Amino acid sequence: MLKVLIVGGVAGGASAAARLRRNDEHAQIVLFERGDYISFANCGLPYYIGDVIQEKSKLTLQTPESFRERFRVDVRVGSEVTAIDPKNKQVTVRRTSDGSTYQEGYDKLLLSPGAEPLRPRLPGFDSKKVFTLRNIPDTYAIKDFCDTAKPKRAVIIGGGYIGIEVAENLHHLGIHVTIIQMTDHILPPADADMAAQLHNHLREKGVALRLNTSVQEIKETKDGLTFSLSDNTTLCADFAILSAGVKPESKLAKDAGLKTGLRDAILVDDTLKTSNNDIYAVGDAIQVTDWASGTPAYIPLASPANKQGRIAADNICGGNLKYEGSQGSSVLKVFDLSFASTGLSEERLKATATPYLKSYTYSSSNASYYPGGLPISIKLLFAPDTGRILGAQAIGYTGVDKRIDVIATVLRLGGTVNDLTRLELCYAPPFSSAKDPVNMAGYTAENILQKRVRPFYAENVADIDLKKATLLDVRTKEEFEGGSIPGAVNIPLDSLREELGQLRKDQPVYLFCQIGLRGYLASRILMQSGFGHVENLSGGYRLWNEIQK
Amino acid sequence: MLKVLIVGGVAGGASAAARLRRNDEHAQIVLFERGDYISFANCGLPYYIGDVIQEKSKLTLQTPESFRERFRVDVRVGSEVTAIDPKNKQVTVRRTSDGSTYQEGYDKLLLSPGAEPLRPRLPGFDSKKVFTLRNIPDTYAIKDFCDTAKPKRAVIIGGGYIGIEVAENLHHLGIHVTIIQMTDHILPPADADMAAQLHNHLREKGVALRLNTSVQEIKETKDGLTFSLSDNTTLCADFAILSAGVKPESKLAKDAGLKTGLRDAILVDDTLKTSNNDIYAVGDAIQVTDWASGTPAYIPLASPANKQGRIAADNICGGNLKYEGSQGSSVLKVFDLSFASTGLSEERLKATATPYLKSYTYSSSNASYYPGGLPISIKLLFAPDTGRILGAQAIGYTGVDKRIDVIATVLRLGGTVNDLTRLELCYAPPFSSAKDPVNMAGYTAENILQKRVRPFYAENVADIDLKKATLLDVRTKEEFEGGSIPGAVNIPLDSLREELGQLRKDQPVYLFCQIGLRGYLASRILMQSGFGHVENLSGGYRLWNEIQK
Ligand SMILES: Cc1cc2nc3c(=O)[nH]c(=O)nc-3n(C[C@H](O)[C@H](O)[C@H](O)COP(=O)(O)OP(=O)(O)OC[C@H]3O[C@@H](n4cnc5c(N)ncnc54)[C@H](O)[C@@H]3O)c2cc1C
Ligand SMILES: Cc1cc2nc3c(=O)[nH]c(=O)nc-3n(C[C@H](O)[C@H](O)[C@H](O)COP(=O)(O)OP(=O)(O)OC[C@H]3O[C@@H](n4cnc5c(N)ncnc54)[C@H](O)[C@@H]3O)c2cc1C
Ligand SMILES: CC(C)(COP(=O)(O)OP(=O)(O)OC[C@H]1O[C@@H](n2cnc3c(N)ncnc32)[C@H](O)[C@@H]1OP(=O)(O)O)[C@@H](O)C(=O)NCCC(=O)NCCS
Ligand SMILES: CC(C)(COP(=O)(O)OP(=O)(O)OC[C@H]1O[C@@H](n2cnc3c(N)ncnc32)[C@H](O)[C@@H]1OP(=O)(O)O)[C@@H](O)C(=O)NCCC(=O)NCCS
Repeated sequence: MLKVLIVGGVAGGASAAARLRRNDEHAQIVLFERGDYISFANCGLPYYIGDVIQEKSKLTLQTPESFRERFRVDVRVGSEVTAIDPKNKQVTVRRTSDGSTYQEGYDKLLLSPGAEPLRPRLPGFDSKKVFTLRNIPDTYAIKDFCDTAKPKRAVIIGGGYIGIEVAENLHHLGIHVTIIQMTDHILPPADADMAAQLHNHLREKGVALRLNTSVQEIKETKDGLTFSLSDNTTLCADFAILSAGVKPESKLAKDAGLKTGLRDAILVDDTLKTSNNDIYAVGDAIQVTDWASGTPAYIPLASPANKQGRIAADNICGGNLKYEGSQGSSVLKVFDLSFASTGLSEERLKATATPYLKSYTYSSSNASYYPGGLPISIKLLFAPDTGRILGAQAIGYTGVDKRIDVIATVLRLGGTVNDLTRLELCYAPPFSSAKDPVNMAGYTAENILQKRVRPFYAENVADIDLKKATLLDVRTKEEFEGGSIPGAVNIPLDSLREELGQLRKDQPVYLFCQIGLRGYLASRILMQSGFGHVENLSGGYRLWNEIQK
Repeated sequence: MLKVLIVGGVAGGASAAARLRRNDEHAQIVLFERGDYISFANCGLPYYIGDVIQEKSKLTLQTPESFRERFRVDVRVGSEVTAIDPKNKQVTVRRTSDGSTYQEGYDKLLLSPGAEPLRPRLPGFDSKKVFTLRNIPDTYAIKDFCDTAKPKRAVIIGGGYIGIEVAENLHHLGIHVTIIQMTDHILPPADADMAAQLHNHLREKGVALRLNTSVQEIKETKDGLTFSLSDNTTLCADFAILSAGVKPESKLAKDAGLKTGLRDAILVDDTLKTSNNDIYAVGDAIQVTDWASGTPAYIPLASPANKQGRIAADNICGGNLKYEGSQGSSVLKVFDLSFASTGLSEERLKATATPYLKSYTYSSSNASYYPGGLPISIKLLFAPDTGRILGAQAIGYTGVDKRIDVIATVLRLGGTVNDLTRLELCYAPPFSSAKDPVNMAGYTAENILQKRVRPFYAENVADIDLKKATLLDVRTKEEFEGGSIPGAVNIPLDSLREELGQLRKDQPVYLFCQIGLRGYLASRILMQSGFGHVENLSGGYRLWNEIQK
């Protein structure tokens, strides 16, 4: 009879345990969980704080009892695995109730210990009023503080996914929130140009943003906390949420001699086996292969953790399934907006000197003539040679997750920009357009790839030498008068053919419209009318303006 | 200078004209449209009738004037092309205003004449109170009738997409609607088992359904119309919408000697060229290749028409792009529900004797612990050997289009059930689950494929010989008592292991739960406990019950 021990009872661990039982009705399966809860909804925790999820019971998908009943898994909560002895194939378990320990032997061991919040070793960061959020007790602690101390001001240190979700939920409770972000934009998977729209939205909602700023010291005062910031200013608040990223809980594995990699994450092969033949590892504790680039990456997300748990369970039972990599598909609600992304960001592509092209489109979430259509902006990153999809980001009010899911699917299946144009997606007016925003992103990218249009970008605008080039706004007179890029002249698209004589053919023409579409049409006219150097602002005035704000 | 004539100024024709202009700034492009409108939102028309779309201007994306201005296309409305002379490369054009005609020569001709509503030659079907809906004048006629005659009862003849959309919109206006459907279920792309849920929903909303019924005669009376039905009953109403399908407008092409195929649709090669070298055809008038089966098909939808128009425009300008087929991805709002599908239905697979397997799953549109999660049921059809996706259908309140779009993408890229399990989709609680419903459909199908579970289906229940087999309900006692399949015994899943002794190992065990999940878990237990023949009801009691209603 196979005996499997599992360390960690949530996303990866519980998924593996359930699948193991289905694989082998007779195996002995022991699940060790340090905390008191298993199978809880990590991702729902921020919403409990904001009263969006109101019942405590909703936070746990399975209890130790239900899990025992249904899966006959020996669930041991309050049980921390403190050491692995790979040679003798046993672990040491510490009962958190009384500190007593015992050994438990295994045939196979699965590690799914997750990741813990990073806590910089800076003065004051260990204050009781500086909370982190990982599990149910953390959630209750924050909730209790809000309920009892009735705080008015919160500081969020780190504007990643968790930070933003908590910010929104605290804001719901009527607490004024300031997000402090070390880099120039929130949300690491987003590029700065896409994050700009989120920044503006957060500010409109009344959330304060301090970008390019870090907290250097925290002092407890009688009123709360005082934060000394890198720009030599200070800030006061009643409490803070520290959400500056996570790090793999790999100490147990390292101590046992298992190999680790990036950020000390546990190294596994493509069957999710660690450097030891009888030990598997999954979830936030492991290093994965980035699907889009094929390089090592650290991608702590729930969907990969669940999938890995299932694959590891099969391999533990003699299977030979491959986990081929994570692509970082994710989505985030930011008040009324959502941001979703998959694959590599432009920043990541730049950092790894990977060649890429990019396009920006702006489409309606459903047919423009049907009520409820709201704009979605899509940034698409693709290979200059093959057009292979490298990554995508989208922002909008609705339908954003759908578009990134479709692009994520194409990315997964190794598809190209050309595939995006060929997709036949479901269309009726309440749901989409005959040319879905994904098709449209494909068309636009394909035109760039085929050099039917030459794009320039918001970040190039400042470099245009207006003495040697024409900056041409092809929007209507009304749009132009409502605000344009300094130095631009205006010839509306629909009179461009008549006014061609006004433009110098011996100079580059930098065109723009509101989003890029009319600029593209204008490009086609000029390029076929003797203009040798014509460029079109991808993303148009809209994106440029969003970034300026 | 290239001279291109286009017949038909809407989805295919206008898309082609716009792309042609971008391809060739100097071509002469003439667009003939019989009616007074071009570039209108066919798909929005039902919603204008129901006041969901309220402005007439919203129904046209481009006007003849705007199209001339922007694309310098010679748009000729009120101009019907009545004959093609392929030898002399010219067409005859009839001005609808005065009936006068003239000839116009071409280098290349593109046909996008669309499809017209089928109008059975039965007595009374030509009544002025029997409306069809194809274009803007049709829409105004129905709307005017509703506004002036204030009808109380409508009959919809034919429950396809257009019929259902009009039914919903008339219902919004307070009109009582009866849908008469010749076959046993509405919506041809749906299978009967999936349509059952839509039937029940329509009835709950107060829409009457007459299935397996056809209208044999219509009589005008002083009160309205009397319908004689195939079941020898009659029905009275104030007016009718005839939405019994469409047929390609291919007479012009046939008269010119162009080859036609299925349902007389124009035959084109994969570059969208007809049997004449200088004539292309796109849209609702052509026969396409069904993407999933590779066989000829007739798929009149807007997304294919738009895509084909763009491809034909490129090929007319010397390109060699392929249109590789349509897969019938579509979605429909049915009051609060949506139905979406892609690829082949089970009925279609049966009709063509194509081997297939199927699975049913039932998942929450977003994380079950986060507000707003509503059930989605997915039916997945896949190849028994390779697991290649053949088709999928989904019904739910929200997020249905997303899931079918993802599956449509996998189908397009030739993917399998196994690919569905590998997809890494965007997950946060407001949007999905860590295992997206698409992953879940993939898991469930994969388990069937790998014979980890042996499914049976609602349609097999009646065949179970209760003397020779056990029909076992593994839901809770409360669920069982609330209604079960006649003849079933109840052992709740969570006590199954203890009660195994109660079950006969020498008899087949037919298991079921509410949706199939617990039945699967129970199957795994029994299959590994000496039971030789164990089957699980895919879709569970829920689907079985839905079909009985
Ligand atoms: C607030 C929050 C919101 C999130 N939102 C999202 C989201 O929207 N989308 C998304 O994709 N991901 C989200 N995540 C990330 C997601 O929850 C993780 O990727 C996922 O839970 C990782 O699964 P895991 O099994 O590796 O680790 P975990 O789910 O963290 O489980 C690890 C468990 O192991 C236990 N453990 C650790 N060491 C030991 C030991 N030595 N002995 C015994 N037990 C041990 C821990 O107590 C812990 O309970 C969120 C995470 C948090 C904290
Ligand atoms: C009410 C309704 C709702 C619909 N809803 C959806 C939906 O939700 N989703 C979806 O995918 N599809 C939908 N469709 C189908 C979609 O509109 C068609 O697939 C698409 O418009 C086909 O494009 P086409 O260019 O082939 O034909 P059409 O768009 O019909 O255009 C053909 C045009 O050609 C003109 N014409 C024909 N013969 C001649 C001639 N000899 N000379 C000059 N002009 C001529 C006609 O007057 C017509 O305007 C709907 C259709 C209708 C009618
Ligand atoms: C819930 C949890 C215990 C996993 O349990 P599980 O039984 O694997 O998962 P589910 O209840 O989703 O069921 C999935 C199984 O049911 C099967 N199934 C689902 N619907 C089915 C249906 N209609 N018919 C038949 N089988 C079905 C699937 O195939 C799958 O089985 P498989 O893995 O053997 O193929 C684990 O994922 C968990 O603890 N999750 C909470 C923590 C977490 O994920 N946190 C991060 C996100 S908040
Ligand atoms: C609207 C219509 C005239 C087509 O015009 P169109 O110019 O091809 O279509 P769009 O306005 O959608 O623009 C698409 C073009 O803009 C480009 N584009 C879109 N967004 C862009 C952006 N942000 N930057 C640059 N280019 C962009 C696309 O690449 C595409 O050009 P391409 O085909 O040369 O690649 C035609 O589709 C039509 O008449 N539709 C209404 C009828 C209909 O479809 N009915 C059925 C559904 S209701």
